[in-house]
Amino acid sequence: MEGFAADLSHPRYASLLMRHRLEVAAKRGMLADSAMIAHGRGEAFDYMLGEQTTPNARHAAQHALVCLEQAARPILSLNGNVTALACDEMLLLADHLNCPLEVNIFYRTPERMEALLSFIEERRQVLDLEVKVLGASPDAMIPGLKGPRAACTREGIFESDVMLVPLEDGDRCQALVNMGKTVIVIDLNPLSRSAQQATITVVDELSRSLNTMLAFAQEERRAVDAYDHQANLKASLAWIADAVNR
Amino acid sequence: MEGFAADLSHPRYASLLMRHRLEVAAKRGMLADSAMIAHGRGEAFDYMLGEQTTPNARHAAQHALVCLEQAARPILSLNGNVTALACDEMLLLADHLNCPLEVNIFYRTPERMEALLSFIEERRQVLDLEVKVLGASPDAMIPGLKGPRAACTREGIFESDVMLVPLEDGDRCQALVNMGKTVIVIDLNPLSRSAQQATITVVDELSRSLNTMLAFAQEERRAVDAYDHQANLKASLAWIADAVNR
Repeated sequence: MEGFAADLSHPRYASLLMRHRLEVAAKRGMLADSAMIAHGRGEAFDYMLGEQTTPNARHAAQHALVCLEQAARPILSLNGNVTALACDEMLLLADHLNCPLEVNIFYRTPERMEALLSFIEERRQVLDLEVKVLGASPDAMIPGLKGPRAACTREGIFESDVMLVPLEDGDRCQALVNMGKTVIVIDLNPLSRSAQQATITVVDELSRSLNTMLAFAQEERRAVDAYDHQANLKASLAWIADAVNR
Repeated sequence: MEGFAADLSHPRYASLLMRHRLEVAAKRGMLADSAMIAHGRGEAFDYMLGEQTTPNARHAAQHALVCLEQAARPILSLNGNVTALACDEMLLLADHLNCPLEVNIFYRTPERMEALLSFIEERRQVLDLEVKVLGASPDAMIPGLKGPRAACTREGIFESDVMLVPLEDGDRCQALVNMGKTVIVIDLNPLSRSAQQATITVVDELSRSLNTMLAFAQEERRAVDAYDHQANLKASLAWIADAVNR
């Protein structure tokens, strides 16, 4: 990876790699001003989770994948940090699900949209995937939101039944749930409004949880236990409490 | 405050004000690349503390102030984030203690040093204080550290007996403790290496804890209970565990 010494033996390799991806994205104008602070908040929660995928996070990710596979109109939503941190994994997941991606950002400017769409297009060509990428021409509004943050695409987010929106804002998560969708969030903070309000919440680092889904997609025999949203969140909180009480 | 709508009724006013101060500092070239991520990590811990000064944080801050007052050669050390977030409070504390400030940064470049020193000088003049500011001409090395991060001033950090170093790096904190100094750290993460290794750790948001010290400095009758470092850290961890278990 350009400009990043791939010392896989470094104990914080994965964490440093994610920071590097954000720095590259910042230079390309892909990120909002608050992107780095939001990432730092996530790092603190991941630190308390031991920077590992917990059994309950694995369970939530597997259940989320099955819901996306069984959906009539699944959609994967990308904001700036998601694109920076896990563009390849999102493209591979969309390819597996045979569904589109939609770029949907809170602080929408034409420059940021263009930076994100061109980055995704580059990666799509590198991976040689035929995934459709929406977001350039919004033609619908998410009810209950105002201004540019309400904008979305009819063919994508608006008419979807099951939606993966990692690292989502609390207000928008609530508005999407209010539309009757199955909303899947990936968020390291189990106490966040998004984590609480979503239909399914995977409390895990973004690329780890997407790789959990991609690995599960390749398994031949699959069985997923019933998912209980509140119980799963409580299990994540118990991991954090254990780390603090150790 | 320029460019910042001072809506004191906003529930997250203090948090937004700190973000604004970092944005101003970033534009002036005062911050390291990792500054925003580090701030976000702190925000996550502050969120779990309820964004309040806990009784044990107040106790640690009061004990820290008394140690600084009783020191033969106290010094207050500022890095980029400390200067951005609480320059005025650090100047006022140095004035109360009649001691110098020293700018001491992990990623030292002439440009960043100049940006920090000129910002502090501006604020010193606005507050009309006669505080001495060191750091422009390092002439000593902290034993056990290598390269630019070892640089310090003999008159300041090197010969000090009690040192306030908020938001310190773990390696440097350890090196300062190894010099035999009383090292006071302010850090929102009670599990960080700095928090664990310091002589006194105030687990609190920086400006809140400095204002706690400045208020205590004005009290006429003061009594501070004995300080137990490990017990105080455990009390902070208990606050976080309570937030998670609620």
